[in-house]
Amino acid sequence: MTDMLAMGRRVLAMQGFSQLLGTELIAYGLEEGVVLRLALRDELRQQNGFAHGGVISYLADNALTFAGGTSLGPAVLTSEYKINYLRPGVGTALLARATVIYAGKTSATCRCDVFSVLDDGSEKLCATAQGTIAKVG
Amino acid sequence: MTDMLAMGRRVLAMQGFSQLLGTELIAYGLEEGVVLRLALRDELRQQNGFAHGGVISYLADNALTFAGGTSLGPAVLTSEYKINYLRPGVGTALLARATVIYAGKTSATCRCDVFSVLDDGSEKLCATAQGTIAKVG
Amino acid sequence: MTDMLAMGRRVLAMQGFSQLLGTELIAYGLEEGVVLRLALRDELRQQNGFAHGGVISYLADNALTFAGGTSLGPAVLTSEYKINYLRPGVGTALLARATVIYAGKTSATCRCDVFSVLDDGSEKLCATAQGTIAKVG
Amino acid sequence: MTDMLAMGRRVLAMQGFSQLLGTELIAYGLEEGVVLRLALRDELRQQNGFAHGGVISYLADNALTFAGGTSLGPAVLTSEYKINYLRPGVGTALLARATVIYAGKTSATCRCDVFSVLDDGSEKLCATAQGTIAKVG
Repeated sequence: MTDMLAMGRRVLAMQGFSQLLGTELIAYGLEEGVVLRLALRDELRQQNGFAHGGVISYLADNALTFAGGTSLGPAVLTSEYKINYLRPGVGTALLARATVIYAGKTSATCRCDVFSVLDDGSEKLCATAQGTIAKVG
Repeated sequence: MTDMLAMGRRVLAMQGFSQLLGTELIAYGLEEGVVLRLALRDELRQQNGFAHGGVISYLADNALTFAGGTSLGPAVLTSEYKINYLRPGVGTALLARATVIYAGKTSATCRCDVFSVLDDGSEKLCATAQGTIAKVG
Repeated sequence: MTDMLAMGRRVLAMQGFSQLLGTELIAYGLEEGVVLRLALRDELRQQNGFAHGGVISYLADNALTFAGGTSLGPAVLTSEYKINYLRPGVGTALLARATVIYAGKTSATCRCDVFSVLDDGSEKLCATAQGTIAKVG
Repeated sequence: MTDMLAMGRRVLAMQGFSQLLGTELIAYGLEEGVVLRLALRDELRQQNGFAHGGVISYLADNALTFAGGTSLGPAVLTSEYKINYLRPGVGTALLARATVIYAGKTSATCRCDVFSVLDDGSEKLCATAQGTIAKVG
């Protein structure tokens, strides 16, 4: 495990909400980008049995923030983002993969794709997001 | 309680994720719009002690969907939305107030403001969102 | 005419693109917000005879920037925005009305509604936008 | 020239606004995606000498619509989009490259990157956009 991944996991462990949901940080670095994984369970679904949109948004938002952090350092927050839901969130888990599109000194524009992980391990795109991450302080 | 509010509460009660978080539907109608309330607790925070952005997003997303539902009926989902975070989410609860800007037959464009409810009961704007809700099926 | 409106008009007059299109600044101030007006003509339309989406976007973007300028001063630019097209842009002119939702020291979040001005002078909402304006330098 | 490219150019030729600006359609197909090119001149700039944000937006919006058209057919319009401006639009021309991320039967989610073409022919990313294209009628 790289030092960056270890640091990212410490930040994630300090987020009460990410602990409540059970999010794992799988990758965190300038080259590999950011990968967050969230195992699906009934508590994370909406009335039709799919992952709640708010869960998908949360995961995209968090992955965008972490992606910004790979360029700007760990003290960052999401200023704004936009998400398009493409397919229902299904399967055993959600995977969010985020990368930096452009980074300045105090902010970064990042992109994130969220995938459903199906029973056979294959991935299906379920949402795509784009947003601005700002350095704090 | 109006019939619409009762119906909205039944939908919310079927969302495992909204139950996990503890969201309440305060208002639901074409005239009064939609108001969702979420009491803050440590499990909903991030590493700096503020409401996690994903919690604010979830609440905005859900309020947008319910707002669309006041025009399009209960079988709706959020196609896409955008959110700007303005101030940290603090205080005792978050309130999301959403309204319909424009509704066609199969989709509606809605807006949502999310407020922090402070200890003295006053409200402070913490995020604003805009998105598209689509009728399902 | 207020000093602010005069200053705003000087900035607009320096935008070659706004001159090409024929945009007028009708209002510019912290209280009255920003109003831009653009008379419609064939050169501003798309293949179906409606105002081109790019014209509506341009007007929204510019109104958002000017709105940010009422809080942050004239040296500002749009960092990002999102627009929902609601109805075709028709009639004799487009009107964009923008206001500041929240302003910090270096950036402001603004909202803009774009209206079609019909032959009888009435207005019909045709698009709504939300974005971030940043202070330059 | 493919039939699709020829058809795309006919649509573009019918857009008064695209003619006013001088936009060219360079590529149009399901595999190659969409490429629009717009030569920069003073009339397309803002007060600081850069391409006006509205020009960049227009180009992104139009490229998104055309990209949706490669999946949904020529009768399409942009429902909504979001754009992040990354660097000033400079150089001799702007290039917008758009692709389809996901297409259903009646709508498609597309992405577009806009580049400045510098004097030496190299390209520099200046904006990135994401939006929803809808089939008409």
